[in-house]
Amino acid sequence: MSAPGAERVAVILLSGGLDSATCLALAVADGFTPVALSFRYGQRHDVEVEASRRLAAGAGAEHVVVDIDLRTFGGSALTADIDVPKHDDVAELDESVIPVTYVPARNTIFLAYALALAEVRGAADVFIGVNALDYSGYPDCRPEFVAAFEAMANLATRAGVEGAVPLRIHTPLIDLTKAEIIHRGIALGVDYAPTISCYDPDTAGRACRRCDSCLLRAKGFHAAGVADPTTYQP
Amino acid sequence: MSAPGAERVAVILLSGGLDSATCLALAVADGFTPVALSFRYGQRHDVEVEASRRLAAGAGAEHVVVDIDLRTFGGSALTADIDVPKHDDVAELDESVIPVTYVPARNTIFLAYALALAEVRGAADVFIGVNALDYSGYPDCRPEFVAAFEAMANLATRAGVEGAVPLRIHTPLIDLTKAEIIHRGIALGVDYAPTISCYDPDTAGRACRRCDSCLLRAKGFHAAGVADPTTYQP
Repeated sequence: MSAPGAERVAVILLSGGLDSATCLALAVADGFTPVALSFRYGQRHDVEVEASRRLAAGAGAEHVVVDIDLRTFGGSALTADIDVPKHDDVAELDESVIPVTYVPARNTIFLAYALALAEVRGAADVFIGVNALDYSGYPDCRPEFVAAFEAMANLATRAGVEGAVPLRIHTPLIDLTKAEIIHRGIALGVDYAPTISCYDPDTAGRACRRCDSCLLRAKGFHAAGVADPTTYQP
Repeated sequence: MSAPGAERVAVILLSGGLDSATCLALAVADGFTPVALSFRYGQRHDVEVEASRRLAAGAGAEHVVVDIDLRTFGGSALTADIDVPKHDDVAELDESVIPVTYVPARNTIFLAYALALAEVRGAADVFIGVNALDYSGYPDCRPEFVAAFEAMANLATRAGVEGAVPLRIHTPLIDLTKAEIIHRGIALGVDYAPTISCYDPDTAGRACRRCDSCLLRAKGFHAAGVADPTTYQP
């Protein structure tokens, strides 16, 4: 346990979307000194790294950006030359099927880097904004995946051998609806204007309105009774 | 199970050292179609990527090299400006202490990429040449770490959701001494001349003779009664 008043550093995975922006605010509200970690991973929507930068600055967080190139492997509509599926209505989403926007092992890779950064900084806490409701059906957003990663992480590092404070992976959004996430964020003063949720934004960072992620976001803001400050393509 | 005669692809983590070279040969001997995966991770010893290229070519394996930059994080003598410890004798090594050459979460990151590549290629098998004897005391070389990673990996991917063949992480060297590894490799025709084990080689790829890894390698060749074809610095 930390001594009273001791600084507790947490690594927060920050994608630039509304979930991770809320997660960052929750970590700060919990008293952690935040180190935000983002990736430039060859995604179509590189504008999300700029969104992350603005969100980290707004939260007073240090921001670490790592370049990784998942395009080497391909296999996803987000990193390869595959069309991002579009729909006219959120009811068309089928969460029983893993969509082509799934990036193979993405959260495993992101959490592995978070683990490395946490170890170097002496942090015992990592935050990830995964969500088991209102999500796109990705296997690596499920609670059982996160629990298994945490168990593995505690065998992977110096802390696991030397008996330091175990690493904890926090998933404060896991059981919340999109509307609940938005309400929590607004209560904490999160500005959702810089956030980008779209899988296929234009170069100005404007959302497409019709990908899975845009549809889930719009549904969430509607259910929350809050106006979405995002900017859409004309 | 695969149909008789069906191609079975395996991803083999290939560092360019003697362990991973032997691991690659064992995967080929097991009938797998090998895809070797190496990293350019800001290590001092970049010559090991060239060694990997030669070893993959020698084994007829496809070779994928991924650029990742662990120098962003620092925290290790292999990636930051920290001296690699040198010793005069292998008896000076203290395996009860994790040495400064440990790179935080390195094997977690490497295996995460291997998982991604395996998923994209439809491979259910990953080989890693970790070894619980004659090793440098790294936490992420222990069998319990590998088992936990395998459990996590099977929740992380499409296969975990869709009920495909579970991913298996093979560690064929885990219980072997360095001498036994060398004997297995020689029996399979591995040419150890291109392999590089040194943590601090010069720019010509010549080994320092006095780092932990050089000392363990020399001890292994001596115990195996085999001449080490490695080239040392004068």
